[in-house]
Amino acid sequence: MSAKFAVLGHGVVGSGVVELFYKNKKSIEKRAGTEMDIKYILDLRDFPDSPYADKFTKDFNVILNDDEVTSVAECMGGVEPAFTFVKACLEKGKSVSTSNKELVAEKGDILLAAAKEHGCNFFFEASVGGAIPIIRPLHRCLAANDISRVAGILNGTTNFILTKMYNDHMSFADALKLAQELGYAEKDPTADVEGHDACRKICIISSLVFGKHVYPKSVYTKGISQIDLVDVADADILGNAIKLVASVTRLENGKILPAVMPMLVPYENIMSGVNDVFNAVLVYGDGIDQTMFYGRGAGKLPTASAVLGDVIEAVKHNVTVLSQSWESSEDDSFIAPVTEFCARWYFRVPEDKCNCEGAYSDDNGAAFITEEKLTWAEAEAKAKEMNAFAFMPVFQSAS
Amino acid sequence: MSAKFAVLGHGVVGSGVVELFYKNKKSIEKRAGTEMDIKYILDLRDFPDSPYADKFTKDFNVILNDDEVTSVAECMGGVEPAFTFVKACLEKGKSVSTSNKELVAEKGDILLAAAKEHGCNFFFEASVGGAIPIIRPLHRCLAANDISRVAGILNGTTNFILTKMYNDHMSFADALKLAQELGYAEKDPTADVEGHDACRKICIISSLVFGKHVYPKSVYTKGISQIDLVDVADADILGNAIKLVASVTRLENGKILPAVMPMLVPYENIMSGVNDVFNAVLVYGDGIDQTMFYGRGAGKLPTASAVLGDVIEAVKHNVTVLSQSWESSEDDSFIAPVTEFCARWYFRVPEDKCNCEGAYSDDNGAAFITEEKLTWAEAEAKAKEMNAFAFMPVFQSAS
Repeated sequence: MSAKFAVLGHGVVGSGVVELFYKNKKSIEKRAGTEMDIKYILDLRDFPDSPYADKFTKDFNVILNDDEVTSVAECMGGVEPAFTFVKACLEKGKSVSTSNKELVAEKGDILLAAAKEHGCNFFFEASVGGAIPIIRPLHRCLAANDISRVAGILNGTTNFILTKMYNDHMSFADALKLAQELGYAEKDPTADVEGHDACRKICIISSLVFGKHVYPKSVYTKGISQIDLVDVADADILGNAIKLVASVTRLENGKILPAVMPMLVPYENIMSGVNDVFNAVLVYGDGIDQTMFYGRGAGKLPTASAVLGDVIEAVKHNVTVLSQSWESSEDDSFIAPVTEFCARWYFRVPEDKCNCEGAYSDDNGAAFITEEKLTWAEAEAKAKEMNAFAFMPVFQSAS
Repeated sequence: MSAKFAVLGHGVVGSGVVELFYKNKKSIEKRAGTEMDIKYILDLRDFPDSPYADKFTKDFNVILNDDEVTSVAECMGGVEPAFTFVKACLEKGKSVSTSNKELVAEKGDILLAAAKEHGCNFFFEASVGGAIPIIRPLHRCLAANDISRVAGILNGTTNFILTKMYNDHMSFADALKLAQELGYAEKDPTADVEGHDACRKICIISSLVFGKHVYPKSVYTKGISQIDLVDVADADILGNAIKLVASVTRLENGKILPAVMPMLVPYENIMSGVNDVFNAVLVYGDGIDQTMFYGRGAGKLPTASAVLGDVIEAVKHNVTVLSQSWESSEDDSFIAPVTEFCARWYFRVPEDKCNCEGAYSDDNGAAFITEEKLTWAEAEAKAKEMNAFAFMPVFQSAS
């Protein structure tokens, strides 16, 4: 028997799924343990020149009502109509694999519950870190661990911009322009540069690791548009690369603290060497100590690889994978406010305000990193008191 | 119903499995979807002070003949008696999870066939890269890819020694002594420093990725004991770190070329920043482009994390996972000889022999990297012709 699946959306990711599937069909079927084929591709546009023109449909109900289709790859993006389509598929017992981080971050709990109720699966490996296997490792390979912290570079666009600022001393504006020219950034780059994209991804990771749905609106999010080249250079002199870090930490009081913000990553930490459009995720647990997963966080075939990996899993599993789920959250009282965020801090202040050893001084002021850890609230107060030009937390390498 | 498993061996890894299991029993059971417990621990020694003293047995047959034990964690090491015990368990339908790379590299095909025949599983995530999830990602998460190359730093002892040579300018002998003092190297360090340990691991990866059993005796293996501090320094000046790289590549003629040898890893490559006892594995595929997995490659709890991750999988799966298997090999005609290994090369030669631009010269000779790629055979000839003091391949970053 051949397992038939449908691909919703024939944009960058959807067309990549079709391309990669047919390229590697034979080995995919071997790994899946069954013959497989794409029965439908849903898109409102026409693709008369596609070698798969006969598979296109504009009517979602054709897919929904075809019992031969047991699995669906959702590559449309956005909450609607993706949510309505995905929920309807799950309620018919069709497993869904998605690359849609917005959908998972906003509606994951509801869709996981629907999958559980109807004995199928809602998979979303492609929604975080593109090609990087991270969702399945978190709940399966690392299942023996008590995971206390996850931190990563989860947005390729901002990492490309920061790499250009660092390597080529380009300003933020120039680096952004280059990213747009190369197709790494969209015309309206807000979702990337202001951290919203990374925020959705850390919401998904937080929900999976700590078991309760974390909404983007509950997560402090700061982007990279305010980063000055002076701070990129001073951070380097002090032994650090500036990266946009999305992280979630379980505090001693049991609450979790997810946040997205630019941080100084010390050169001793492997994550400081993650450059260009690459992503990486560091996981801290009591068995593993620390493990990092690295790769392309976006792009046609990398994202398609993750979607198809999930489709293959969906074909192999005829029961719901319960370890990959979380509960709905009634409120966000399990989330600590960012004012409790604790770290060593980088400051750049007017030279006359600084009397600390080890500071680096030039015309742009004095830059230093605090010996002691400060909470966000304490750091803000110190910044005000010293008339700081800039201040940022330093990423803590140890678990 | 509670799933009962046994732990064979109560050395470093085995005791770590027991410790980590009881530490995280509640969350492990949640992820496994069933209650779990350790029923037996097999060891010839006595552990009267252990909190689990009542679980110890010296008689393997007690475990083998107890039908309540459905899963076994093998942490004894060595081929025998591990092979006999594991095979007997699999033939009784008990799934086995092992950390024993020697066993998998020498007998993996036989044990996988036994598991398949008896409807159970032979898992070995812990045998490569310690805590790092790599086996399951290779055959599951990356299942949609045509994987063409895998390369990694698979031995923590040698990576620690190389890091000390690099950072602290210690000689090989001094760094080895320090590694022994810190417990990272054994009294007889041959298996680590001569590359045999890394060789076993690349055999396992090669077998899994390319589908036929690769034996250690078929793999060219060179260790790090001949590496001179001069070359570590010169490689740095030329923009590279020297690492012991275990790799396998599919050549254009369809043969595979597994090998273990010191290589220069360019600083642009993320693997150059993998230091101390850490391991990393880079995977190249047509969907992902490249993905790296990083973490602790050895140690009590890191290895236990991987073993327990497999035990949890074994408890969840009541069918054989066929994607994680390979065939026996009748001969090694599918393996290309190392003379076909092709790369750019680093040479250090007497100064009067060198007339190449970009060479770095000092009292120790002239060091340079070839622009063009040479086969191993060509590089050897060139080294002879130039009376080279040292020559090593340069790791190729692109896929």
